[in-house]
Amino acid sequence: MIDLAHCRTLDARDPLRAVRDRFARPAEDTVYLDGNSIGAMPADAASRVERVMLEGWRDARRRGWNRFDWLEKPWRMGEGLAHIVGAGQGDVLFCDNTTINLYKILGYAWQLDRSRPVIVTEAHNFPTDTYVAEGLARLVGGGAALLRIHEPRELDGALSRRKVGLLYLSHVDYRSSRRWNMAKINELARARGVLTVWDCSHAAGAIPVDLAGTGADFAVGCGYKYLCGGPGAPAWLYVHPRHQDRAWPVIAGWMGHADVFAFAPTYEPLRGVRRQQTGTPSILANEAMSAAIDIWRDVKREDLAWKHRSLSELTTALLEQECGKFGVRITSPRDYDEQGGHVGFSHPGAGSVCEALLEHGVVSSFRKPDVIRFGISPVAISHEDVWVAVSRLRHVLETEIWREPRFAKVSV
Amino acid sequence: MIDLAHCRTLDARDPLRAVRDRFARPAEDTVYLDGNSIGAMPADAASRVERVMLEGWRDARRRGWNRFDWLEKPWRMGEGLAHIVGAGQGDVLFCDNTTINLYKILGYAWQLDRSRPVIVTEAHNFPTDTYVAEGLARLVGGGAALLRIHEPRELDGALSRRKVGLLYLSHVDYRSSRRWNMAKINELARARGVLTVWDCSHAAGAIPVDLAGTGADFAVGCGYKYLCGGPGAPAWLYVHPRHQDRAWPVIAGWMGHADVFAFAPTYEPLRGVRRQQTGTPSILANEAMSAAIDIWRDVKREDLAWKHRSLSELTTALLEQECGKFGVRITSPRDYDEQGGHVGFSHPGAGSVCEALLEHGVVSSFRKPDVIRFGISPVAISHEDVWVAVSRLRHVLETEIWREPRFAKVSV
Repeated sequence: MIDLAHCRTLDARDPLRAVRDRFARPAEDTVYLDGNSIGAMPADAASRVERVMLEGWRDARRRGWNRFDWLEKPWRMGEGLAHIVGAGQGDVLFCDNTTINLYKILGYAWQLDRSRPVIVTEAHNFPTDTYVAEGLARLVGGGAALLRIHEPRELDGALSRRKVGLLYLSHVDYRSSRRWNMAKINELARARGVLTVWDCSHAAGAIPVDLAGTGADFAVGCGYKYLCGGPGAPAWLYVHPRHQDRAWPVIAGWMGHADVFAFAPTYEPLRGVRRQQTGTPSILANEAMSAAIDIWRDVKREDLAWKHRSLSELTTALLEQECGKFGVRITSPRDYDEQGGHVGFSHPGAGSVCEALLEHGVVSSFRKPDVIRFGISPVAISHEDVWVAVSRLRHVLETEIWREPRFAKVSV
Repeated sequence: MIDLAHCRTLDARDPLRAVRDRFARPAEDTVYLDGNSIGAMPADAASRVERVMLEGWRDARRRGWNRFDWLEKPWRMGEGLAHIVGAGQGDVLFCDNTTINLYKILGYAWQLDRSRPVIVTEAHNFPTDTYVAEGLARLVGGGAALLRIHEPRELDGALSRRKVGLLYLSHVDYRSSRRWNMAKINELARARGVLTVWDCSHAAGAIPVDLAGTGADFAVGCGYKYLCGGPGAPAWLYVHPRHQDRAWPVIAGWMGHADVFAFAPTYEPLRGVRRQQTGTPSILANEAMSAAIDIWRDVKREDLAWKHRSLSELTTALLEQECGKFGVRITSPRDYDEQGGHVGFSHPGAGSVCEALLEHGVVSSFRKPDVIRFGISPVAISHEDVWVAVSRLRHVLETEIWREPRFAKVSV
């Protein structure tokens, strides 16, 4: 039997204990397990953004470009994140949103070999990922199309087809939390001469990601989930150095020009990943994201790995121990190496249970038809938080309070 | 002779007098004439953004989507701007940045008739505009190409060519401030069966723009210049209702899906301009932009038109009266109907003069080789401000202080 004392022992061992205090705690009593939707706010984020607004916008106006680091921020943030996703220092860039970065990277990768215009993806990839790929295929024509696999075992056959040039996967499934083995998949793709594009939105900042070590060609990810950059934060993208200078970016904008303020009549892309910048980034959003990145700079990759695993295994075990008898069934993978950022479980009344949990100070997220996700954000939650959350879930289920009609509305 | 008393008389008549007080005044002594680079900050912008960060991000996290108007904001802001650019209420959307919106709109318009894949533009269009078009042409192939005209008189010939399907212009030139006659050009393009895409970045919020009245097909514009949305603010785009539902957007993202939170496996675009939304917008940047839009809602189109003309004509006349003898030559069009957002003038030492002006409390902007721009932002400056700015310029030129070596660096 796991008890509260055991959770506290784990917390005492936690190398990221102090990091948790760098995030704002709105109400001591609430446990936030929605880092997979919108991560915690760094404690200094609001004051940093205010300073940028007053000193940058109000006082400096256009001189802000000279006085502050506005122009450098997108790739400085990339440098700060690089070790968390296993990327080289100069190979990550923060810009735009995830959807746009998916489009840019997919388009960039697609045009590198037009003789193999078919893109392999999963039938159950995150919807926006498949929308983006279909939209791209409609625009560019030239045989561009999506080939959807339904099971992992179909992958090799799909990659072996003559016209297939790209493999486009989510590292972690946003509902099931199933994680692809990035190393194996990259190896297989490489053997078939296929380039890989990974969406790491439900992985980065939670589980260890090793883009360079596994030889990933391209990746993108969300800034506002586990990375804690705030609602609608800039997203990131990764381009392996071997591909950075091979072509024009798809959206060729002045921020990706070799000489940004030259206003040259012809486009000449910046060298490296920075050519993927488009137009002017939101200086306010970049500042909030930077507050989080300054925390990530101090997080060791191995500490993150230890803590996510420890929290995940604790969550899974406690859910079964405390709530199994009330109909809770774990839906995320039981083998930790196959699990992504969140622990998921099903319950027949999941939508209402999620709402009732909210009233009891636990913020989780619901996905149709019957799954609740506990987002495991190692920088922002403790083992004791997990104990508290599961205890409250047990109370909600045991008292059957979730059956009350006011919980029947379905949350986002 | 124009004197200060005359400027004050004009201010007393100014219907937008009270609007100026809704912007933050960092230092009473500084005159900001860089609304063409980064516009003034609404007085309540910083407190509004702080509230969104604390109540939305810190406290509500993912529940912010339900509690606040995050999802509606992009088109609510569009509604607030519509009368300023002469658009229908539901036809404007704020999203992404100008570069991305140019790409999206150009791509969307281009695919509507692939039998005429050539895009006509100006050789001296804003660089990012031409970069974006060239990047698109490279990606899509299919005969897509740019045809550049060097003089307005070449326009009709270019539009008459068989493969030309799109005309792509900046309403106002960012250096010369020359304004195209949008009504005439739209009429000509229509007669040739060519669709029009206008970049209104150096027009909207300064001069009257009449998108619907002149029959423009598409437009985009910057949010952080005359519209005062803050550095890197979301940009806007306009699609005439006749084109809104004709095709998929180029970047098909979940925010443009008919049922945003359904996470449906197949893409079905929202009806109307909103399908042009991509991924999650920056909630912080949208709030700052909204602070400005709430001011624009209270600005009457005819008052804006009166004041911009009044300020522009005053600026031009005062520059000649006070500074003509020191080598200042007006470079922006002398006929107001041909002038855009700013008044421009040349001086042999323009770069240094711009820097010396800064030290004397006048923020203008310099463009190589020898032009200074005075951005005329009718919501944020008064006629007396113009008097003060020109008096200081006269002082800088008269004393030749601009020749001091410390002003030799060239500003952005």
